[in-house]
Amino acid sequence: MNTDYRNVTFLNGFWHDKQKMNSTVTTQAVYDRFAETGRMDAFKCEWKEGDPNKPHIFWDSDVAKWMEGAAYILAREDRPDLAEKVEELIDRIEKNQGEDGYFNIYYTVVEPQNRFTVRNNHELYCAGHLMEAACAYYEATGKDRFLRLMEKYADYIAKVFMVEHSAKFETPGHEEIELALYRMYRTTGEKRFLDLCAHFLERRGQPDNEEAQIFLAAHYAQSHAPIREQHEAFGHSVRAVYLYSGMADYAKETGDEALLTACRDLFEDMVTKKMYITGGLGSTRIGEAFTVAYDLPNAGAYTETCASIGMIFFARRMMEADPANAARYADIIELEMYNGALSGVSLDGDEFFYENPLEICRAERHRITATTDGERWPPSKRVKVFGCSCCPPNLTRWIASLGQDFYALDEESGEVYIHQFTDSAFEKDGVSVRVETKYPYSGRIHITANAPVYVRIPAWCRRFTADQPYTEEKKGYVRFEAGEIKLTLLMRPELVASSVRVSRNIGKAALRRGPMIYCAEGIDHDGDVHTLCFDRMAVNTAKVSHDDILRTDVITMEGWRRVDTEPDALYAPLLECYQPVTLRMIPYHLFANREKCDMMVYLSYR
Amino acid sequence: MNTDYRNVTFLNGFWHDKQKMNSTVTTQAVYDRFAETGRMDAFKCEWKEGDPNKPHIFWDSDVAKWMEGAAYILAREDRPDLAEKVEELIDRIEKNQGEDGYFNIYYTVVEPQNRFTVRNNHELYCAGHLMEAACAYYEATGKDRFLRLMEKYADYIAKVFMVEHSAKFETPGHEEIELALYRMYRTTGEKRFLDLCAHFLERRGQPDNEEAQIFLAAHYAQSHAPIREQHEAFGHSVRAVYLYSGMADYAKETGDEALLTACRDLFEDMVTKKMYITGGLGSTRIGEAFTVAYDLPNAGAYTETCASIGMIFFARRMMEADPANAARYADIIELEMYNGALSGVSLDGDEFFYENPLEICRAERHRITATTDGERWPPSKRVKVFGCSCCPPNLTRWIASLGQDFYALDEESGEVYIHQFTDSAFEKDGVSVRVETKYPYSGRIHITANAPVYVRIPAWCRRFTADQPYTEEKKGYVRFEAGEIKLTLLMRPELVASSVRVSRNIGKAALRRGPMIYCAEGIDHDGDVHTLCFDRMAVNTAKVSHDDILRTDVITMEGWRRVDTEPDALYAPLLECYQPVTLRMIPYHLFANREKCDMMVYLSYR
Repeated sequence: MNTDYRNVTFLNGFWHDKQKMNSTVTTQAVYDRFAETGRMDAFKCEWKEGDPNKPHIFWDSDVAKWMEGAAYILAREDRPDLAEKVEELIDRIEKNQGEDGYFNIYYTVVEPQNRFTVRNNHELYCAGHLMEAACAYYEATGKDRFLRLMEKYADYIAKVFMVEHSAKFETPGHEEIELALYRMYRTTGEKRFLDLCAHFLERRGQPDNEEAQIFLAAHYAQSHAPIREQHEAFGHSVRAVYLYSGMADYAKETGDEALLTACRDLFEDMVTKKMYITGGLGSTRIGEAFTVAYDLPNAGAYTETCASIGMIFFARRMMEADPANAARYADIIELEMYNGALSGVSLDGDEFFYENPLEICRAERHRITATTDGERWPPSKRVKVFGCSCCPPNLTRWIASLGQDFYALDEESGEVYIHQFTDSAFEKDGVSVRVETKYPYSGRIHITANAPVYVRIPAWCRRFTADQPYTEEKKGYVRFEAGEIKLTLLMRPELVASSVRVSRNIGKAALRRGPMIYCAEGIDHDGDVHTLCFDRMAVNTAKVSHDDILRTDVITMEGWRRVDTEPDALYAPLLECYQPVTLRMIPYHLFANREKCDMMVYLSYR
Repeated sequence: MNTDYRNVTFLNGFWHDKQKMNSTVTTQAVYDRFAETGRMDAFKCEWKEGDPNKPHIFWDSDVAKWMEGAAYILAREDRPDLAEKVEELIDRIEKNQGEDGYFNIYYTVVEPQNRFTVRNNHELYCAGHLMEAACAYYEATGKDRFLRLMEKYADYIAKVFMVEHSAKFETPGHEEIELALYRMYRTTGEKRFLDLCAHFLERRGQPDNEEAQIFLAAHYAQSHAPIREQHEAFGHSVRAVYLYSGMADYAKETGDEALLTACRDLFEDMVTKKMYITGGLGSTRIGEAFTVAYDLPNAGAYTETCASIGMIFFARRMMEADPANAARYADIIELEMYNGALSGVSLDGDEFFYENPLEICRAERHRITATTDGERWPPSKRVKVFGCSCCPPNLTRWIASLGQDFYALDEESGEVYIHQFTDSAFEKDGVSVRVETKYPYSGRIHITANAPVYVRIPAWCRRFTADQPYTEEKKGYVRFEAGEIKLTLLMRPELVASSVRVSRNIGKAALRRGPMIYCAEGIDHDGDVHTLCFDRMAVNTAKVSHDDILRTDVITMEGWRRVDTEPDALYAPLLECYQPVTLRMIPYHLFANREKCDMMVYLSYR
């Protein structure tokens, strides 16, 4: 019961617009930045010492993700410009692939003598992304040249790691190849790719495997324990969710209950203890990592765009591996889609965030930046490109393919699941569903289906109405019979609090409406958001209106600004004082699109 | 109108006990640790490559501060053990001082070729501390040998820096020698030491002076501007307050209004924008530095013990340089005395804090320690000694001499100022004052004086009563005529809030009673202090009782513990839920004296 993104067409709505911008502006912008920085030419493998643009160890993956995104676009659009670019890259890969099947830019032109010697150098990670791109391109176009090259590469990797054991490490320092090999298996039907996937998964964290220590600690790359013994999310957050995605693939394939339990535990550990309200993952820039449960600093949040996208990949796989809890996973996909993942790209589609903090205090910038570069941190403006440019092409491939998370067809029963909502059409095997909606700005959803539909009622929704009776209710879904359904999810602004165990958020709340988290920006509040305060009662009379600049709906509501009773004193006897102020809250994913200013998600309340 | 610590005797009270412990336990403990680590033997200047205990660049200063503290004790107590130790150190200094007058352990035995070449290597800082110790020892004992050695050293420094200009820098990278030279001038009456003091002050931050960049930036060592143009506190907080102390000395001496204005501005900048409620200074461990106004993170507070002690030195000098505002400075001395400075030493007197944070969250420890050593940070336990051991001997010399901040005699009018309160006697020039009090545990103060007294009414005190009429009131002081006065400062537990500009403390308050700030420790609250919440009304019925283990008064009061409405959810619609709990608040300076546990100064309130 899985879905292909090609069965889904976004029509006139939120994701239609985002996908259109992605296929035109963003995909081109990322290509141009990559070309300017030498990443595309690097595939010629002609670089030599002294030349500009020395290839970096993860450049293959940057471009591979871009190719994968281009493939999804090519499946739906006639885009000879993109096709030509992808084919040219495949030409270069074909030309420079070794006789043995090996392909890696850095280890071909910079350190050819050191192939497979440094675990943390992203070699298998790059290979994995190339394999994903090859599968996507084959599925989109039917052309198998790239796929054949990557089959050869995968076979070479199997020989090195499973037969010869000639590499200086056993498992990748940055996971990715696991899920990619599973995809190779699914795309080609060749079980040997599943075997290699299983090998990398099973060898990870084994006590007889002396590779655990890289960078900060074994936990950094999830090498502290065998996969079935991992029940808490540790280490580098992107590495983690990529690994967990591969584990979920393998659990689904094998039906391994212990592995599925580990996956469920890891998912719940993140969602109930280590995830920001925006879906952001990774509390610290030190190791780009998870820390401990409930440690969720707002201004210092690292919350890499790739971690949120990777969380979607993991949740997507868990929907298939653990369908009884599909709504749980779909809720998190929705949260990431509208918040922590989408905030990675600018309103105009050509600038990107690596980190997505939940608070910006520009005055305090120099405290945080004293030992780091001032440009990116805290990121009060998105940038066109950065040295470690994993996030931009992750956005292009994710947005280009995200239809797959919206619908699913149970091929046995002919029932359709509507997991996510946007103005769209689903067609598969004679089943067709049309959804008309202004979601996420409105909870009104008009469904026309020629088959029974299970519609997800999001966890954020406390009440819904429908003009048709629903005939069944199960764990987050309600069933309607075929026909026309007018469903309304009651979508009111409401304040959401963190668990009291998140000590930083005690006495504070965030504003949510539907699937979107809102934030306050300085530009709307005389430059000062830190003293703003929600009025709990006024939330009930909040107004939703359109903002032409941000091209979104914003929420205005009466609120307060805290003021000092003794303006010159740093400390004074407690005596609260407030001035009335109108709060103007914008969707979190749109922060930092106007001017550099402070921002807060959590405000105090009274 | 200044005071000598020898005119003040602490009797049976808070500071009597602290001073007694200091002269017995602490002074011996610091000596023993210094001896064990080779600091005392280092003064033999016999170390050579391959030997253990390689001298560090600031070891001279560690021991010099200890000698200074010992001198203050010798002024009052018959302590042949201490006298012998000090004399032995002076022997070693005398023996190893160069013909030219130079003395520095590190630059004698480790890098003799590099004398006065590295600005940040504490050479002049060490010299300054030796000079302070020499002055103190001369004043305490009348023995002038040490002082003569240091006069010779000062003359050599003057030659190098003012005549030959042969050093590779112009002003010290770590200030201290400025205030020490002023003290040399006051002790000896020799104006040439004042001239050298002035030279180092005036050359600092001059644009033609190419030494500004050390470590992080010119601001780090206050080298970003000439002293009269410094109006905001920047950089390393201990360096800063030592410099400002020297500036205040010089402003007092010269009556230079522009310099006094700079001193006042710097003081007010710290006190109204950059000081923790405990008196702690220095918001970040990066550079052990001030950051920006209102940036006062609690768990991450660096707040070095030496910075609080240095702030006392600065405030003490400002009382003399700017007597019209004496109460302002005395208030800050009091705040530091009972909180941020005193927290540096353990209840038993033999363990020390370098950093004094305002919050400990042990679960989050590994986040903060990922790139630093786990032993010291966050400091949930004091330690016996540390590599950079500036704080322990700073505590011994400060506590041994702190009588000087309690009283002052106006020699012209014969009036006495009572700046601070403890059970004590003051005698000078036939004027005698006796203060009987249990302060800071009680606000009842019984004064017997044979001269008119100006008694400070602390800024924390909103109401006081006296059995005698006061005859004058001026900026923080009330005047009583000679005789017996029973004064009561109303001392009630109260909640104190930060300015709303301190965004981290919004919605939170600290508990204060009299001059002391209180905190909650995990050991008294089932291990969890982070969910505790003050009850604003219950503060009025708080109870004060004695704690035998901590040998102090603690405050118990009804309060609340926040609990989750949906225990398994990380986020849920805002709906506050509380359980009643009894809060047990201990003086901040006594935290971490029982077991390693969490601690908070600021709690939420309702």
